Amino acid sequence: SEITPDTFELTTKPLPSPIPAASVLVKTLYLSNDPAQRGWIQKDADDRRLYVKPIRAGEVMRSGAVGQVVASTSSEWKEGALVSCQPGWAEYAVFGEKEVQPVPEGLESPTLALSILGMTSMTAWFGLHEIGHIKASDTVVISGAAGATGSAAIQICKNVVGCKRVIGIAGGPEKCAYVKSLGADECVDYKSPTFEQDLIDATPDYAEVYYDNVGGSILNAMLPRVKRWGHVIACGAIEAYNDVNKNILTNWFEVISNRINIRGFLVFDFPEKIPECKAALAKAYKEGHLKATGKHETVREVPFEKIPDVWQTLFVGANTGKLITKLSEGESKL
Amino acid sequence: SEITPDTFELTTKPLPSPIPAASVLVKTLYLSNDPAQRGWIQKDADDRRLYVKPIRAGEVMRSGAVGQVVASTSSEWKEGALVSCQPGWAEYAVFGEKEVQPVPEGLESPTLALSILGMTSMTAWFGLHEIGHIKASDTVVISGAAGATGSAAIQICKNVVGCKRVIGIAGGPEKCAYVKSLGADECVDYKSPTFEQDLIDATPDYAEVYYDNVGGSILNAMLPRVKRWGHVIACGAIEAYNDVNKNILTNWFEVISNRINIRGFLVFDFPEKIPECKAALAKAYKEGHLKATGKHETVREVPFEKIPDVWQTLFVGANTGKLITKLSEGESKL
Repeated sequence: SEITPDTFELTTKPLPSPIPAASVLVKTLYLSNDPAQRGWIQKDADDRRLYVKPIRAGEVMRSGAVGQVVASTSSEWKEGALVSCQPGWAEYAVFGEKEVQPVPEGLESPTLALSILGMTSMTAWFGLHEIGHIKASDTVVISGAAGATGSAAIQICKNVVGCKRVIGIAGGPEKCAYVKSLGADECVDYKSPTFEQDLIDATPDYAEVYYDNVGGSILNAMLPRVKRWGHVIACGAIEAYNDVNKNILTNWFEVISNRINIRGFLVFDFPEKIPECKAALAKAYKEGHLKATGKHETVREVPFEKIPDVWQTLFVGANTGKLITKLSEGESKL
Repeated sequence: SEITPDTFELTTKPLPSPIPAASVLVKTLYLSNDPAQRGWIQKDADDRRLYVKPIRAGEVMRSGAVGQVVASTSSEWKEGALVSCQPGWAEYAVFGEKEVQPVPEGLESPTLALSILGMTSMTAWFGLHEIGHIKASDTVVISGAAGATGSAAIQICKNVVGCKRVIGIAGGPEKCAYVKSLGADECVDYKSPTFEQDLIDATPDYAEVYYDNVGGSILNAMLPRVKRWGHVIACGAIEAYNDVNKNILTNWFEVISNRINIRGFLVFDFPEKIPECKAALAKAYKEGHLKATGKHETVREVPFEKIPDVWQTLFVGANTGKLITKLSEGESKL
């Protein structure tokens, strides 16, 4: 069902006062905006099919965030500390002392904990390595290449693994220029009337791996461009999140005739590999292989009640890199 | 492009006379009808994308057959011998002595070399074992279950491997009754107005493996019924062979959220395992685990010029089991 203006409701409820022992009160500074959040909103569904606990009517919208500790009854956390946490769309939240993580020191901006060092980059890392089994000899095509996951995937392929050829797919010349600035050998504009031919021209020897963030018409256009025995990393399907009828795969027979292997995954699937992944991303960032701030994040500063409006721009391709909501100052009702 | 009445043309050309040394002249008795033949007809396509040599305009339509040796210059073959061969849609053909294989002795009918011991059963065997990795503990759903590959797959799962639960999908009560007679625990009728609910009811604990012969709407209905981490064996997509717009997969996001693995394959992909496969099928047939003649084949006897008409009934679901064309006697122009 569609997201409508009355899907979200602004409500106020009291915080516990005083906060419990070994806890922190955190003020939300930055919110992570993720396409995956769309799938978490579920009126009804068999729980065995849901990959995370669904958000039902009346519950706070779930979201990752960077916040600041404003009160603490924990010896581990001082007032003023910056933390990664999951307050949802809330101005303030109380957490147990183990439920928040420190924002790493020495970052250009704390937002990096949500972008290049955050969940979306980990998603790109796991998808490429665990599902796509990318090698330096591979040609890799990545859709949603100007988005948070896609832009991380481009950089991991080209700057970390050193893949032979890395091709992005993105919407419009500005995003394509950005994708090329990350290291992509080419970027194909899906909004161009010559998109399908451009994609053919960009993949004269096909692609061993296709990292799919988009589904629908882009996946369809890519199926004939995946090399025989190639892999499709099924990470997202944003084109169809609000209209499933867009998933028309006229080229489906390519899966059979060219023995394509398609595999879905989630970032949560590799819990034992998270420390290794985080360390690899931090190392790549330090060595300058992962660009982060500037054009690599879209930070929109809005008052609290505009959070849903910013989030919904994800689905019309308005952001370059990670879309982050910065909560305006002076809105606090505490 | 569509198959039309003028796609095929009836032509006559002289056979070599006398036939070369170490050769046989074979009269075609039975022709194999296979959905895959549809994909071999190609006006134009990049050869790197075609899994077999395409059939271009003016070439003989390719087809497997059982025939009888009517003249021989080979010490290996006597007149009267029954052979498996690839004459295409031709009344007579000349082969080198190594290009034909004997029809196994002791069969109820020589047509078994095209049906239960033929390519389609080998396809089912490889798909289930090499792609689906089926185990006795699995629930397996098989579409096109009354067809040649599907009916072999049902029997291999239930009668050879002993899978926990085997569910067929087929069109109409008669085909469903047939599928259950092969050992399926249930068969769901895709022509029923309650098909989607029936499929849900038939898979209360989902299915570890889905063997897809159909694609399109049946694949779409199955995606939410494949268990988390389950496998889709992409073997065929007959629903959309003549209209690719039927491949609307509104449930595509299930691939991601439930980490489904979809893999295409062809029977040609496991050449080193063919002897093992043939031996296993022959053993299963001898032990009564693979039913073969009777309802398990649809043999249509027609004059030579009606071959395309019989073949096209594959795409409207007219056959139960393997569809075989028997060439009428008295039509020979030799």
